[in-house]
Order: sequence, then structure tokens, then C-alpha cells
Amino acid sequence: MRKVVILGYGQTKFGELWDKSFRDLIVEAGVKAVETAGIDGKDIDEMYIGNMSGGLFVGQEHIASLIADSAGLNPIPATRVEAACASGSLALRQAILNVASGNSDVILVGGVEKMTDVVDATKAISSASDQEWEALFGATFPSLYAMMANRYMYEYNLTLEELSMWSVLMHEHASKNRYAQFPFKVSLEQVLSSSPVAEPLRLLHCSPVSDGAAALIIASEDKAKEFVNKDELIYIKATTQASDTIALHDRESITELKAAKIAGEKAYKIAKISPKDIDVAEVHDCFAINGLILLEDLGFCKKGEAGKIVYNKEISYSDKFPTINPSGGLKAAGHALGATGIRQVGEIYWQLKEDKEVKDRQVEIKNGYGLTANVGGTGGTVCIHILSRN
Amino acid sequence: MRKVVILGYGQTKFGELWDKSFRDLIVEAGVKAVETAGIDGKDIDEMYIGNMSGGLFVGQEHIASLIADSAGLNPIPATRVEAACASGSLALRQAILNVASGNSDVILVGGVEKMTDVVDATKAISSASDQEWEALFGATFPSLYAMMANRYMYEYNLTLEELSMWSVLMHEHASKNRYAQFPFKVSLEQVLSSSPVAEPLRLLHCSPVSDGAAALIIASEDKAKEFVNKDELIYIKATTQASDTIALHDRESITELKAAKIAGEKAYKIAKISPKDIDVAEVHDCFAINGLILLEDLGFCKKGEAGKIVYNKEISYSDKFPTINPSGGLKAAGHALGATGIRQVGEIYWQLKEDKEVKDRQVEIKNGYGLTANVGGTGGTVCIHILSRN
Repeated sequence: MRKVVILGYGQTKFGELWDKSFRDLIVEAGVKAVETAGIDGKDIDEMYIGNMSGGLFVGQEHIASLIADSAGLNPIPATRVEAACASGSLALRQAILNVASGNSDVILVGGVEKMTDVVDATKAISSASDQEWEALFGATFPSLYAMMANRYMYEYNLTLEELSMWSVLMHEHASKNRYAQFPFKVSLEQVLSSSPVAEPLRLLHCSPVSDGAAALIIASEDKAKEFVNKDELIYIKATTQASDTIALHDRESITELKAAKIAGEKAYKIAKISPKDIDVAEVHDCFAINGLILLEDLGFCKKGEAGKIVYNKEISYSDKFPTINPSGGLKAAGHALGATGIRQVGEIYWQLKEDKEVKDRQVEIKNGYGLTANVGGTGGTVCIHILSRN
Repeated sequence: MRKVVILGYGQTKFGELWDKSFRDLIVEAGVKAVETAGIDGKDIDEMYIGNMSGGLFVGQEHIASLIADSAGLNPIPATRVEAACASGSLALRQAILNVASGNSDVILVGGVEKMTDVVDATKAISSASDQEWEALFGATFPSLYAMMANRYMYEYNLTLEELSMWSVLMHEHASKNRYAQFPFKVSLEQVLSSSPVAEPLRLLHCSPVSDGAAALIIASEDKAKEFVNKDELIYIKATTQASDTIALHDRESITELKAAKIAGEKAYKIAKISPKDIDVAEVHDCFAINGLILLEDLGFCKKGEAGKIVYNKEISYSDKFPTINPSGGLKAAGHALGATGIRQVGEIYWQLKEDKEVKDRQVEIKNGYGLTANVGGTGGTVCIHILSRN
């Protein structure tokens, strides 16, 4: 299999973007990605798009055809990939396999979601759970993750203060991200006293409903050298994916994401590294509890330890731990479902490249490795990417 | 890139299957595919699913996670691919690239759609057109294809009798297919006098709303030899895909599918054959006019000639032309959107293999090549596969 690198990245701001349509968003991100990669549209061999539910949010399927058309990229193959909130990273994985196979040299991979045009976004999002056995009985994503949080607090004595510190740190990080939906700080007291959503989760433990898009240009190593100096290339070292039961009640444990463990271990093995080699990671904190669980399942700390590590702010520019979600994460940077997996990889790309976009939030790169963990549903799908400087 | 072969195929009956749920359908097809391939579930490295709109038809996204779970295939990676009615063949293409890259050895590729649980299927289907510039103004798929038919009749003097003969032949073929939604013959008079849908299209020029699923097992050539004798292998010689404008009004011509021409020419080139080498083909006749247009765009005849060829029944077990849609096509075998691309390839696999399933409708295999053409929307996406005996 051929080596695959990232050549460029672009994204829109995430937020309630009333003045931008579904196609406006992805075209804006795509054009930025092409520009930063220093390529032309005609250099692109193929396109992939991650999108969770164009159907339920804007009444539009046949997503990739629409976007290839709007972006003026016809007649290249254009493919939409869906796995709920993990749609973006699954689209990236297909693009990587395509380049690795030798079929294409340069691929545009985008992710997009336009969530604010629908009256009941929570209902649309619930289509990521088991429709017949969860959603039909009224379970929403806040309530499913609240069950995970409740059980975790019971099993590991996690306090609400520890859980809430996650949100404080995410907002602190996002305050330095001009694309973040919430680029401002919040205090621990503000998180604790925010409106209850589903016990024990407060509003400030939840990621928002967001419009947004993000796009990457990836290429074979050989082709990339035509555009960029070899020492500037950022490599994709591993792309792994695993599945778990879609319904929470079918799992042996609801305080871990089995698919994250499996995909994570496989990724470390392929990249020939261990968790301690990671300098920076973007993990899927659709709800604060999921951020904590992922720190453990990805091997950054032992089970039950995440709360204390977060409360001590070790995940934020400390010497003791990789920095987690310098972007602000889903919590504060926003969560435009299909775009999230691409945005996570984009942030790691910027961090490893020490791009001027992350000047104010640059993590110290010691070992040269970064990781992303993108989750679909309550963990029915998990997709991991490991990036490196060489 | 490694050579990729088909190891097994299974499908449900297509039709109004009130007693079977979305997950029942795909599990039934998947189990049949595994059984005919002579493999075990544990031999499967990865899974792909083609599905157009679980969201709008049954309120379910995160499709591949649901299916991996229902089929007992966790924790393998499971990915859903969408491109409207071309979803199935795009899922297959991703699986082929995955095996070709060396990442996986054996992959289950399924397609599924449960269309009869929704009140307004036509509205859900219209999400495959341009939502803002076609569907919002009332354009439905029958009306879009009716415009194509009208213009084609004007430009090429096609008669309604010639167009209607397509449906007669499709029903004749389907009468020998136990999985077909309409396994019975209709006369030319019946087609001509069926209810008007959108002028000039009558009810019997239209494919039906269908529930159904289909599944293939594909593998690398080397791995396949562990399960099947080399001379029984059916090879995938080419998998190509192209995009066109999603909206009909943006095209230079609405009497051809530009994406079919581009993907077709590329496929012939990769397979190193010409259209005259094809013994049997399955083409996407969501409406009869599309069957005729594809015969021309795929190079089986010249522009404007398809009507006469069809009227003379040359596409049905004649010496002069490849046999088209021995299954009965979308028209009479049924059109369970996401399943269609897989069902088409399954039929060609059976035909090239001279499987007992197609005993009563076996096409004479002279050159050993078969082709499928799967279309998304009005041609915004077209995906072509060429299969061969060796």
C-alpha cells in the first residue's frame, strides 16, 4: 500500500450560519483546502463527502453529486459516506484506501452538516441510535449519554466538578480558535449551574447543534512532492475503524467504548507507536463524559483516572499528558456532525505542521505524532487516525 | 492493485414485503451470500452497505453499524455509502478498492432499501434530485424522466410503441425470476393503456417502489482460491464512476447521460474490451426511457437507434445484441434503491457462472464478459462494473 499524506486543509466557522446553505458551506471549505494545498481543481482525481443526514436535515440525499456539481468538479467520481457523527472520518478512510490502492493520486475529502434548518434537530440526530429499540421509545442522545455518565459516576466515583472541568478546558481552548462556535471561556460555576438537560448532564456538558464544513486534500507521497517539500509533508500513519452494537442496552459495559479500544489498539500497532508517543489528540466529546471515556479507552490513562487528570488540567498544555482538543473539541468548537471527523484531522494537521492558524494554541510537538478519535452514535462506530511528521 | 473476484451472492425477493423489517431484509440477503460463498462470518474482514435513504424511509441513519450488529459481524469496520439509486454499486466500488489496496481480503457488500413503510415515497425519492432547484418546485422523478422521454421522442422520432416494448421485454424476463417483484408478462397493449403518470410515461414505463436487499461476497484472487476452484472464479475487471450535474436543467443535453458515457468508456479501456465483447448487461431502467438511453451511451448502438432495436426484441436472447436485463431490470424485477446496484452485479455473476438460479433465463456466454450500469438520480452519478470469467 502506498504512503498517503495531507496536502491542505480548510474549514468554515462552525455555528448557526443562517446566511449559508448546505452547498455554500462545503464549497467554502473545499476551496480553502484546494488553496492551502497549492493545487488546482483539475489536479483532483476523486471526491469523498462525510455527511450524516442531508435527508433529515435539509431533504437532500445524493449529497456527493450535488457537491461535485456545486464545486465545479464534474465528472470525477464523488462518493458520500455515512456513519452518523463518524461520517467524516469514514469518508477520509475510504479516500486513504483509494490512494493507497493506487487508484487515485489526489483526493478532496470533505465533511458537511447543515443542522439549523430543521425544527427538531434532536429527533433527526436520534436516527443515529437504534430507531426501533431506542429512539421509538423516546431515547435521545442526551439521555443515552446521560445513562453512560450516571453509570460511570457510580462505578468510578467521578464528581460533577471533575466532569464539568472538561467543558471549562474546552471553552478555554476554543477561545483561541476563530472557527469555533463558542470562542469564549466559561467558569466551573457556570458549567455546574447551567440548565439541566438529562441528569447528570447540564447544557454546558453538551456539544451544540452546528452548521459547518471542513475539507482536506490528501495525496500519495510521490504525487505530493510535486506540490510540497518533503519535510513539510504530514503523513497518515494509520486509519482504523471498528463497530459495536448500535444500541446501548446490548453492551456488556456502558462505561467504555469497545470499538474505540479495538480501533485504537490496531492503530497504534500499525503506526508502531504507543499512546505515550502522542503529542496532541482530538477526541469526540459530543458530551463531556465521552471525552473522559475516550482518554481511558485510547490508553492515555487507566480506567477511572480520567476525571482527576481532567480536573488537574493535565490535558491542557501540561508536561504530563498529551494536549487534548486544542481546537476546543466538539463541546466548544462545535459539532457539525459529518464535518467533525474532518475538522479533528484538520486540527492535528495544523498542530503537527505548526501552522499559523494555530499560532495562539500551538501544542509543543515532541514526538511528532497526533491522533483523532471520531465516534458514531454512542460508539456503534469508532474511527481512529494517527498522523505524523514523517 | 490486486485482482478482485466475486465469491458468493444472495438476495431477498423484491416487493412490498410488509412482514420484513429493514434489518430482516439485509440479514437475509447477507446470510445467503455467505452461504453461497462457502465461507464463515469470521472470514469477513469488513462490510459495506449501499443505502439511499434510511433516514427518510425508516428514520434510521448509522445504517452500517445497525447491520453489522444485526448480522453478528461486530467489531469489523462497517461503512454505508450513498449516491441515491447508485448507492449499491458505489458501495461495491469502495469494497473493491479496499481489497485491491491490500487492506482486506474478504468483504461483504450489501445493498438495502425499505421503501413501503413511508406514506410518500415519491417525496423521499425526490431527495435524489436537486432539493432547492428541482424538488422544491414540485419536480418528481417521474416528471424529470418524462421530460427526458419527451425530448428524446422529439429528437429521435421514438414512438410510444417502441418505448413500451422495453416494458414488455422486461416483464417477459422477470417471469422467469423468482425474486422479481412482477414475475408475469404484460402485453404491448397493456403497457400503452396503463394509467398516465407523467406524459408520455405510463405506469408500466415506471419501476416500482420496492423493499429488498442483495449482498455479495468479494475477495482477493489469492484468498478466494482457498474457497473456490480457480476456474469457477468470476473476476471484477473494472469499477468506474463519473458525476454529472445533479439538476437536469444544467445539462447541455437531456437525451444522454454524460456520466454513463465517461464511466463506460473508462471501464472498457480498463477491461481492455469493447461493447461488442459484452454477452449480457444489466442497465438501470428506473423508467423505460433510461434503458434506451443507456444502450446508446454504453456504446451498444448509435444514438437514436435504441427504440428500433428494442422494438425488434434484439435485446432479448437474440444473436444480434447482448441480452439486456435478463433479471427483468428495475422495471419488473423491482427497484429497492440501495439494493439495485448489488442486484445487477449479482445477476451478471449468476449469468457468467451459469448458476442454477438463472437456469430458466440463462444467456449464452460467448466472450465471457458482462456489464452493469447503475444510475443515481437523473444521471448525476453513474457507476459501471465489468465482470468476466477469467
